[in-house]
Amino acid sequence: MTTAQEQATAWVAVDWGTTHMRLWCLAADGTVLTRRTSDKGMGQIAADAYENVLLDLLADHLPEGAALDVVVCGMAGSRQGWIEAPYVATPCDPRAGVAATSAPVSDPRFNVHILPGVKQRDPADVMRGEETQIRGVIAQEPGFDGVICLPGTHTKWVRVQAGRIVEFATIMSGELFEVIGQYSVLCHSVGNTGWDAAAFENSCLKAAQDPTHLIGSLFGLRAQSLLADLGPAAARASLSGLLLGAELGAMRRLWDATPVTIVGENTLAQAYATALTLHGQVAQVADAETTTLNGLRDAYAQLQETEIHGS
Amino acid sequence: MTTAQEQATAWVAVDWGTTHMRLWCLAADGTVLTRRTSDKGMGQIAADAYENVLLDLLADHLPEGAALDVVVCGMAGSRQGWIEAPYVATPCDPRAGVAATSAPVSDPRFNVHILPGVKQRDPADVMRGEETQIRGVIAQEPGFDGVICLPGTHTKWVRVQAGRIVEFATIMSGELFEVIGQYSVLCHSVGNTGWDAAAFENSCLKAAQDPTHLIGSLFGLRAQSLLADLGPAAARASLSGLLLGAELGAMRRLWDATPVTIVGENTLAQAYATALTLHGQVAQVADAETTTLNGLRDAYAQLQETEIHGS
Repeated sequence: MTTAQEQATAWVAVDWGTTHMRLWCLAADGTVLTRRTSDKGMGQIAADAYENVLLDLLADHLPEGAALDVVVCGMAGSRQGWIEAPYVATPCDPRAGVAATSAPVSDPRFNVHILPGVKQRDPADVMRGEETQIRGVIAQEPGFDGVICLPGTHTKWVRVQAGRIVEFATIMSGELFEVIGQYSVLCHSVGNTGWDAAAFENSCLKAAQDPTHLIGSLFGLRAQSLLADLGPAAARASLSGLLLGAELGAMRRLWDATPVTIVGENTLAQAYATALTLHGQVAQVADAETTTLNGLRDAYAQLQETEIHGS
Repeated sequence: MTTAQEQATAWVAVDWGTTHMRLWCLAADGTVLTRRTSDKGMGQIAADAYENVLLDLLADHLPEGAALDVVVCGMAGSRQGWIEAPYVATPCDPRAGVAATSAPVSDPRFNVHILPGVKQRDPADVMRGEETQIRGVIAQEPGFDGVICLPGTHTKWVRVQAGRIVEFATIMSGELFEVIGQYSVLCHSVGNTGWDAAAFENSCLKAAQDPTHLIGSLFGLRAQSLLADLGPAAARASLSGLLLGAELGAMRRLWDATPVTIVGENTLAQAYATALTLHGQVAQVADAETTTLNGLRDAYAQLQETEIHGS
């Protein structure tokens, strides 16, 4: 038995988002040999810079005389990214019929396969990256049936039936939290750190019960800090609670009677789990990185069967 | 009869907001002799800079051997402004009991009186400047009874009963329009100019009917521009309609059965009037500048009776 360090990189998995990219070198048996991150996300680089970012991160892993397969999910496949990987339309099985798009590279030592995003016609919606996490959930539990929530800048709520994405909705609550907290008058009241769990829960409950509460209460955070000594940690948690409560109110038909699987990072996923619990729904949390890797592994296995080695 | 140019400046009215200030030199009979504006709003200057801004704008109007009365409303009276003019608490009559705060000046040629803002304890809310416009409405129609809407960055909805402010609410829809359109992913979809009246009305109706529609539909503007060729003018009007519809949904109990007087600038006031009309309510529009000046004239008349000349 060899150690991880002694095993050769068989392929490379990449999650290339708007602000960051994460890269894993994997052995033939799926073991992670190396994990690297970069802040050169889609929003920071031009189309012709992607190859060099990969070269920098993979320099010591590239084989001679062979081409390493690199499987990429995320915003690198958007129109503003490396090369556009067309969307697959809902309803769709994220494990079937993956038509990866080859990215243009000049170095013969790797082949880059960019996975498609998913689009929905009506109401119009798109995802890039989350479909691979959904794939990861379904790969672990074939025939999965339920609602998957993927919290983030643009949180996705996805209804999966018998392993197929049948419907999804994006709520940009993470981004609203950032832009309202940073650029509106609330920047004087909302802190950058700290948390007040009671303030979060109170705002979250009110905003979910009364969907007019969000827009009706935002300025109140400023007024409370002027008149009632609302502190920055409480204001921060209240803003988060107002947005998350409003989001739950809008997505109620998805989570009300269906088990929810949250795929996310620790803190954010926990805030969603807490919010759902407040409303009487139980959610299980799946680790985002593990789920992404499972989806990329599943995609690589399929690519091996079809595109890479022919079928 | 003298012309306006030949009349002496008897006093000066100032509306000093966050981003701009407007100044009017008035004759003893209330005629506007001069109108000047500056981009030196509260947000741009330090407390010790206010006097010089006034001096620059008034240099050719200052009397020798006498002190000109300058009456100021707006954010100059906030804690971050020239000097804090304490709030009056609701319920209150904006025409009674004005305790203006004297601003510190070193030039003996003017006395500066800053009018107080209005605060509400529960739910916490504050206004600075709008109370003077409300005063202007009531001065024109003593005993005014109804709802006054003052659209802007922080729109105020105010219930006035028998000439008293009994309740108000601030909706920061104007600021949300700016920060979401400029700093979120929607900046790629929402134009800076152009208007699509049908898109505005459609979004406004939907968001008012279903208060979950706002947060549920924001990302859809981005998706529609990617998938369905939604143009920048339509996206801009839709964003505005979503926010204004959500605002009307939140404020329904105020405007549903009461005549609304909108105090605003042309385009924005007209958007509010259109939105109310879509929901079966009729609104009359009062010009913002005229109403502000009427409020400042009313405050000056009262100051003359009480503080300035003693009583």
